Amino acid sequence: MGGVETGGTRVRCAVGTGPDDVRAETTVPTTTPAETLRRVLEFFRAHTEITAVGAACFGPIDLDRSSPTFGRITTTPKPGWRGADVVGALRTLSVPVAFDTDVNGAALAEYRWGAGRGVDPFVYVTVGTGIGGGAIVGARPVHGLVHPEMGHVPITRDSADTFAGACPYHRDCLEGLASAVALSQRWGALPETLPAEHEAWRLQARYLALGVAAIAAVLSPPRIVLGGGVMRAAGLLARVRAETVKTLAGYVRAPDLVPPALGERAGVLGALALAQATLAEAGVQ
Amino acid sequence: MGGVETGGTRVRCAVGTGPDDVRAETTVPTTTPAETLRRVLEFFRAHTEITAVGAACFGPIDLDRSSPTFGRITTTPKPGWRGADVVGALRTLSVPVAFDTDVNGAALAEYRWGAGRGVDPFVYVTVGTGIGGGAIVGARPVHGLVHPEMGHVPITRDSADTFAGACPYHRDCLEGLASAVALSQRWGALPETLPAEHEAWRLQARYLALGVAAIAAVLSPPRIVLGGGVMRAAGLLARVRAETVKTLAGYVRAPDLVPPALGERAGVLGALALAQATLAEAGVQ
Repeated sequence: MGGVETGGTRVRCAVGTGPDDVRAETTVPTTTPAETLRRVLEFFRAHTEITAVGAACFGPIDLDRSSPTFGRITTTPKPGWRGADVVGALRTLSVPVAFDTDVNGAALAEYRWGAGRGVDPFVYVTVGTGIGGGAIVGARPVHGLVHPEMGHVPITRDSADTFAGACPYHRDCLEGLASAVALSQRWGALPETLPAEHEAWRLQARYLALGVAAIAAVLSPPRIVLGGGVMRAAGLLARVRAETVKTLAGYVRAPDLVPPALGERAGVLGALALAQATLAEAGVQ
Repeated sequence: MGGVETGGTRVRCAVGTGPDDVRAETTVPTTTPAETLRRVLEFFRAHTEITAVGAACFGPIDLDRSSPTFGRITTTPKPGWRGADVVGALRTLSVPVAFDTDVNGAALAEYRWGAGRGVDPFVYVTVGTGIGGGAIVGARPVHGLVHPEMGHVPITRDSADTFAGACPYHRDCLEGLASAVALSQRWGALPETLPAEHEAWRLQARYLALGVAAIAAVLSPPRIVLGGGVMRAAGLLARVRAETVKTLAGYVRAPDLVPPALGERAGVLGALALAQATLAEAGVQ
């Protein structure tokens, strides 16, 4: 099985069947699509044993198999990557190709091997440069009109928060108010430099709790993994838990909020899981 | 197949296999659980041909099969109904019993026979005395920690809206700001008496659009049915559509917002569909 996670700054590739069986891996910097995908293909061509390949991609991406742009990255602001044909490139390997969002990949990996085992519905949220979420329902990643865009859930702004918001589309969405970019712009400092007692974290916990409350209301997952760079801030997860209980106010039980178990490898492991699922489905048909 | 929808004011019962094959139906007023369930059982006992019965219930209800209170209504404020053992009563019919929320039942019926055919994920939202939503993913109703409680999604209050909110748990949730009860209390008039040009409807469309945006962000359904008494207000659905497009701001495509196709029978038809699904699953196992 081959798996590739295309991230904004680097692309991870792996060959194997799961976290305990990664036979080869590599990381290449994300430059132009042509250069980056060439190096990805080079890696996989050296592993002739792979029988399927999965791609977990930053989005938005086109997941509609009946669409002429299926398998491509769509409206990304990332220079050069708009319209990049990830699936088209991987098809030159002549094995089945699975394709999903990076967060759906990470959600699937955590569901199969990590902090989401046995939990259904299960949601994985990453809080980093952007905020994204993937959902597993009935053991499969959820796709819809496009795919979930949990980072863009509307959030009630704190009355004292005068920051304009970091999302070019929405004034008050989770990503616009609580991503690493929003934190940096609002406080004029990188999130990792803000001390634990800084007002930033109270506000951050409040916004993330509102996002969690929306996810709980719509999907009711027993557990949500909160990952990504921002969640590494000391004490933040505990504060989000406390704020979530306060926000839900006892009407519905709060979902467990836990850190990821697979760390930075969740995305590429998810890509392996996607490849496996594709083969399993092909076998059934 | 037997189906029963327990509503706050009346309970609908039907025998049949779908909207074009309802062989018998009856409605009984919702009084005490003992009295109400006795009349429901009486109706079904007169139909010895039923091979399974489904119940679509107002909530919150306990859907956890491993729980000692499975099949009961839980924290309802409805006098006498807290702890009512709906499934226990139906089991005296000696046929398999399916159990879900009224909105999951309605969602399943609209998905199988109505405005949600072929749409997956699919969401049904009812805007009435309360606000509730049911979701179908992978052809099945979504259950989670409890069940979705879409009426309690946090909503950003309009800065000019000084109404305290009608939800005893949350100051600013969809049900608290946009249910029929909220409308009546805020404007001092029943929603059906408020003229189409009344300020109430601008605000109502705005709040419902925020709820739709949250559902779209988390689950990305291509289509959402908006039903319930409040949605019968002239022009409201069109205003919610326009507000939703404005709220999503082009980042994700707006889901189709459509009226229900099955009308007031959606719940009881959903109960029939739940009963059928239970038999189908029993047959597979």
